[in-house]
Amino acid sequence: MVVTAVATIVVIAALATAAIVLNVQHADATPVRNKGRGYNTEEYMAARQRLLSKEQKRALGAELQLNKNELQLNNILLKEKKEIMENSRLDRLTYTPALSFFKSKEWIEKTTTFKIIRKMPKGAALHLHEPAITSLDWFVKNLTYRENIYMCTDKDGFILLNIFLTPPQNPDCVWKLVKEERMAATSVELFDAKLRQNISFLSTDPLTKYSGTNSAWDRFNKYFEQVGSLLFNAPLLRDYFQQALQEFWEDNVQYIELRGAMFGYTEVDGTIHDTAYGVELYKNASEEFISKHADFLGAKVIMSGLRFKSEGVIRNEVLQAISMRRKFPDFFLGYDLVAQEDPLNPLLFYLDALLYPTLRSLDDALPYFFHAGETKWEGTDVDENLLDALLLNTTRIGHGYALAKHPELADFVKSRGIAVEVNPISNQLLGLVSDLRNHAIVPLLADDFPLVISSDDPAAWEALPLTHDFFVAFMDLSGQDVGLGFLKKLAINSLKYSALNTFEKEAALSLWQSKWDTFVTEAVAEFS
Amino acid sequence: MVVTAVATIVVIAALATAAIVLNVQHADATPVRNKGRGYNTEEYMAARQRLLSKEQKRALGAELQLNKNELQLNNILLKEKKEIMENSRLDRLTYTPALSFFKSKEWIEKTTTFKIIRKMPKGAALHLHEPAITSLDWFVKNLTYRENIYMCTDKDGFILLNIFLTPPQNPDCVWKLVKEERMAATSVELFDAKLRQNISFLSTDPLTKYSGTNSAWDRFNKYFEQVGSLLFNAPLLRDYFQQALQEFWEDNVQYIELRGAMFGYTEVDGTIHDTAYGVELYKNASEEFISKHADFLGAKVIMSGLRFKSEGVIRNEVLQAISMRRKFPDFFLGYDLVAQEDPLNPLLFYLDALLYPTLRSLDDALPYFFHAGETKWEGTDVDENLLDALLLNTTRIGHGYALAKHPELADFVKSRGIAVEVNPISNQLLGLVSDLRNHAIVPLLADDFPLVISSDDPAAWEALPLTHDFFVAFMDLSGQDVGLGFLKKLAINSLKYSALNTFEKEAALSLWQSKWDTFVTEAVAEFS
Repeated sequence: MVVTAVATIVVIAALATAAIVLNVQHADATPVRNKGRGYNTEEYMAARQRLLSKEQKRALGAELQLNKNELQLNNILLKEKKEIMENSRLDRLTYTPALSFFKSKEWIEKTTTFKIIRKMPKGAALHLHEPAITSLDWFVKNLTYRENIYMCTDKDGFILLNIFLTPPQNPDCVWKLVKEERMAATSVELFDAKLRQNISFLSTDPLTKYSGTNSAWDRFNKYFEQVGSLLFNAPLLRDYFQQALQEFWEDNVQYIELRGAMFGYTEVDGTIHDTAYGVELYKNASEEFISKHADFLGAKVIMSGLRFKSEGVIRNEVLQAISMRRKFPDFFLGYDLVAQEDPLNPLLFYLDALLYPTLRSLDDALPYFFHAGETKWEGTDVDENLLDALLLNTTRIGHGYALAKHPELADFVKSRGIAVEVNPISNQLLGLVSDLRNHAIVPLLADDFPLVISSDDPAAWEALPLTHDFFVAFMDLSGQDVGLGFLKKLAINSLKYSALNTFEKEAALSLWQSKWDTFVTEAVAEFS
Repeated sequence: MVVTAVATIVVIAALATAAIVLNVQHADATPVRNKGRGYNTEEYMAARQRLLSKEQKRALGAELQLNKNELQLNNILLKEKKEIMENSRLDRLTYTPALSFFKSKEWIEKTTTFKIIRKMPKGAALHLHEPAITSLDWFVKNLTYRENIYMCTDKDGFILLNIFLTPPQNPDCVWKLVKEERMAATSVELFDAKLRQNISFLSTDPLTKYSGTNSAWDRFNKYFEQVGSLLFNAPLLRDYFQQALQEFWEDNVQYIELRGAMFGYTEVDGTIHDTAYGVELYKNASEEFISKHADFLGAKVIMSGLRFKSEGVIRNEVLQAISMRRKFPDFFLGYDLVAQEDPLNPLLFYLDALLYPTLRSLDDALPYFFHAGETKWEGTDVDENLLDALLLNTTRIGHGYALAKHPELADFVKSRGIAVEVNPISNQLLGLVSDLRNHAIVPLLADDFPLVISSDDPAAWEALPLTHDFFVAFMDLSGQDVGLGFLKKLAINSLKYSALNTFEKEAALSLWQSKWDTFVTEAVAEFS
């Protein structure tokens, strides 16, 4: 006996420990026994199948019954998924789908799975930011070719863009007409390519170039500085947004909800527009687009304030948002606070402003769509944003990366059906997680939480509107045995948890279902 | 209205969608209302505190009531933890505790928290492997100074060690007497330092040097090749193990459970010992150690087979293990299968062998302590090791990194009280997770699952027996608001989920409690 010699010596301390329960049912475990005797192989395999089925049935999409066509497509997807995963696992090769998007992008685009997801009607993209939703190609090849576009190169070599009738003095970053610079270049193609590369967040590998979340965010903020001034110009923004709708439509997305400033948009002559103008700009552009694309449901908008503003500023935005909600009840959805969550003000800092609507009549209701929990800082003020988002009755949670670390809040989210907007590529490139198989939302996907996949700022890192994020969700955030039902449920969830009203949702689902059936038939024909 | 134009077009598809429930309670969310009206700030803060408390009370250790002394120590720990985390979060600086252990080790050792945890009685280390538990310093400065020790340098520059009366011909790696090589060196110190560096897994940063799990494992396997032959020599192993007990004791660990081969140990003359000899070697060494250290509870052992052996070999080991369990019921605990889980045979491959004990009488019961789920490969055969480990009634789970991705299995684990042995530094260095705040076990720690912290192979990467792993668990796997209760619960869990019998457990807890009370008093005095 190991411990008898010690036992008598230390028995004096025994009284203090009476409250601690030490015994564990299985400390002397024997292999599973069935009514007093052991399993034989057959009984074991039956018990195994029962437990495995229970496990698998909990995952997102597992409850969907697939029809014959869908099952065929499911087989095509599972075959490639299994090949890619097993080749890597058993031959001990790098698993490309979980690498930095910088390294995986080209490879991803060659897969059959990617081609299928590209064609798949994906429903809605519910987490997007105004200045990063239209391809950089179009931005460079179209917007920077407009009149009065200026550029300057800052001390770190980044090209900033702007629009002026006459550029101001700016000794640290001298404004030059893009048109003239382009003409002076040896090659227009090379000039455009360099401009594009200078803006793209993906011109280098963010996972090796930046040492962590903060330096990634510094570069990310620079992107907004580079393109932001052009996109606060109302006519340019309108065209940029229309092109975004075109690209989302082409990526087989049916509907979007967009976060944006909604006020402060300008004309080149210096005119500054009010919030109603901003909302109408989006509303008109959306209506114009759907008038030409009957199979698209358009956009709705969420006003987003900045987490570093004073409480007074945010209070004023809340008032503005209440007013916009009253004025555009079917288009203006609510309010959010954005920018790097970690170091900036938590929701609690703005509590009085954010509680304001609740003290008014129900006519002044203001739905929130808070970013919360885009962090690895467990137990800090920023982590508690999840708590406040829920108590402030957020309609959805933006990112919610930290949610699985909060079982009580996770239960709350599930029981209330508050969807989490997950943006996997964004989370990777902005330093939350390198290997996407470690994404903190995976446990919730495995337990059918209310989740949707979105793309955050796809244009900043040259991702397609939604396809790449769906691809990595499929290959990295779900198991080898998880197929079409997962993708289908993500599409359905995106409509279910959208802020469309009941009537709109039914119409949206009808549209989507019709597209889905066509897609399945065509995909089976093409990829069998 | 956005979608009315579309609605009529797609209404034909509406029937197909009837089964899908679209409505979500909170799609039109308004800020939280309390009996029909909104919260004012005071009411909100009260509701917030209630929800926050519910959340915090679910975490591991949260239920422990701390006494006055413990509260003082708790404050000391929380103060430094908060400072380190908040400085990094708010000033946007690198958070050192979550970096590669290669980068963080020196820094960690300077913290007050480290010094406190070093002195803390940590209970048991339940997940350890035979050839990586004694410091490399001692290994080099003691074992390689023995008689008949040879070294050779392989084609990749790694020094392999062995013990021979006369070395065999080995043209690809020529054996030379270490004694002579050391004497011929310009400096003995330099020679030993180079030898040590050549063996250490931490002589370079594994997170940047190796591109993923597989190349990290290749280097890790090389470590075992380097030291393994010496440690299969029975007299050297006996001394190595005694020194391990010394170092664990000095690190304020009270008891260990060790996985090892248990057979095949040799003498320099070529004698090969049987399994009973191996078990007795450990048993005698443990008893000898505790005879001189009344405040240590010794060791017990788990036989570990290798996942790449044939089923016949494993079947034979199972028979051996049953026999050892009968012969040494208080010392020989059971059986496990080890080596890189990802590409090697899953438990299911060995099912018939592993089910064998269950078909015999209860006298032949063989507890299992399976490694399972040390993987990121969701839904693959390796991932299903978790399923089989549980169905084979494993006493504990080694690693269980993938467990949170399996809600049904996680429920099973919690309801049955099957502890998961978490080895955070090992998981990081062997490529499962880079930023330890993303460790997949965090959600389970936040929900008081049966978990223990161990160190796997601490000597391979120059970690202390248990202190460094406890440190990173405290700083990376728990929240800023989580203090001494968490550490205390980890220590208690390590005894609770040990394979000590009921009587031994009570004695162990008494010993631990007595040491704990002294530790708290002394730590408060020293660090206040």
